[in-house]
Amino acid sequence: MNIGIIGSGKVGGTLGTRWAKGGHSVIFSSRNPDSDEMKDLVNQAGPKSRSASVSETTKASDVLVLATPWQGTQEALRNAGSLAGKVLIDVTNPVLPDLSGLEHGNTTSGAEHVAQWSQGAKVVKAFNTVGFNVMANSDFGADRAVLFYCGDDNSAKSVAHTLAADLGFEPIDAGPLTRARVLEPFALLWILLANVQGFGRNIGFKFLRR
Amino acid sequence: MNIGIIGSGKVGGTLGTRWAKGGHSVIFSSRNPDSDEMKDLVNQAGPKSRSASVSETTKASDVLVLATPWQGTQEALRNAGSLAGKVLIDVTNPVLPDLSGLEHGNTTSGAEHVAQWSQGAKVVKAFNTVGFNVMANSDFGADRAVLFYCGDDNSAKSVAHTLAADLGFEPIDAGPLTRARVLEPFALLWILLANVQGFGRNIGFKFLRR
Repeated sequence: MNIGIIGSGKVGGTLGTRWAKGGHSVIFSSRNPDSDEMKDLVNQAGPKSRSASVSETTKASDVLVLATPWQGTQEALRNAGSLAGKVLIDVTNPVLPDLSGLEHGNTTSGAEHVAQWSQGAKVVKAFNTVGFNVMANSDFGADRAVLFYCGDDNSAKSVAHTLAADLGFEPIDAGPLTRARVLEPFALLWILLANVQGFGRNIGFKFLRR
Repeated sequence: MNIGIIGSGKVGGTLGTRWAKGGHSVIFSSRNPDSDEMKDLVNQAGPKSRSASVSETTKASDVLVLATPWQGTQEALRNAGSLAGKVLIDVTNPVLPDLSGLEHGNTTSGAEHVAQWSQGAKVVKAFNTVGFNVMANSDFGADRAVLFYCGDDNSAKSVAHTLAADLGFEPIDAGPLTRARVLEPFALLWILLANVQGFGRNIGFKFLRR
């Protein structure tokens, strides 16, 4: 495959290097394709890689991997030339610089509304990311399913933690209540995989560490 | 623990039943606590459970588990009486009835903007849900990390699939490009766990099936 990397930073550089070493032809694009940085990258990625301008990369590649910082994404695409017919793999996330959320969508959550409607209560978001059938039986053989929770009150969170452990989950603290803005879409992912993508409801996630 | 379940449907019923069997005292709330349905539920959950009105449940419970359908959530809380000092575990998701998204937040995605800015390209969202270090080395011992992708063009998606498999991931099709609305927050979850919650960047997810 001829792969062009738009945005040759850590993500684009890593992906391109691994694909080049696996036998694909990779072009790393850059405003300065002859810079020392790009030479180092190509050196590391090996003989199946080279560097080029963005427009040359676009022209020469069947597959484009978009790995720009979000703020530079629109401009990078404007400079890329015609993209008609190209496979463009979007690796970006429109994450706000302070990690408080996403630039597009997701500026509040159900949990925050619940907190407003429950003045004085210690609200924790939990048990929303898997279906009732997985809460009924959380056994996945050798694997322990994760259960995320979030909230602003530590004592309330430790309650949720205990109750999740009671059900056999690995409870993981995802932070303050505003994290429901990510746990709720995470739940929607589960729902869509189960009900629309054909995996059925006997699914879950294990949290991997190493 | 004295646990009150607000919304005793599948989710609330399952949670309450498992906790009651595990030794906690559980009250299932209902508008009709003496209905046959509630009697069956209490029968199944065993001697540590009973049913009551929402206001009585609130009064008698240290921990409230909110498991209402989203559309009934505000009213249920309005009927619950004072919640001051209560631990309230919010299990709800503000999922739209047709699963197209969430009622709050998340009505578009970066990927959809990218598609608009890349007229004619076959856009796939992928490789956005783990850090570059995990893409550099996706080995988690006996566990295979999942890599979700989404898009509207099947040939482009099969490219993303192959490229993810090349890196040692289990590639999973998450559906059309609008699914970036959940994959992007899923990515933010990874980012926050890695960088804010203290788990570090050597984390990932395994997709569990049974």
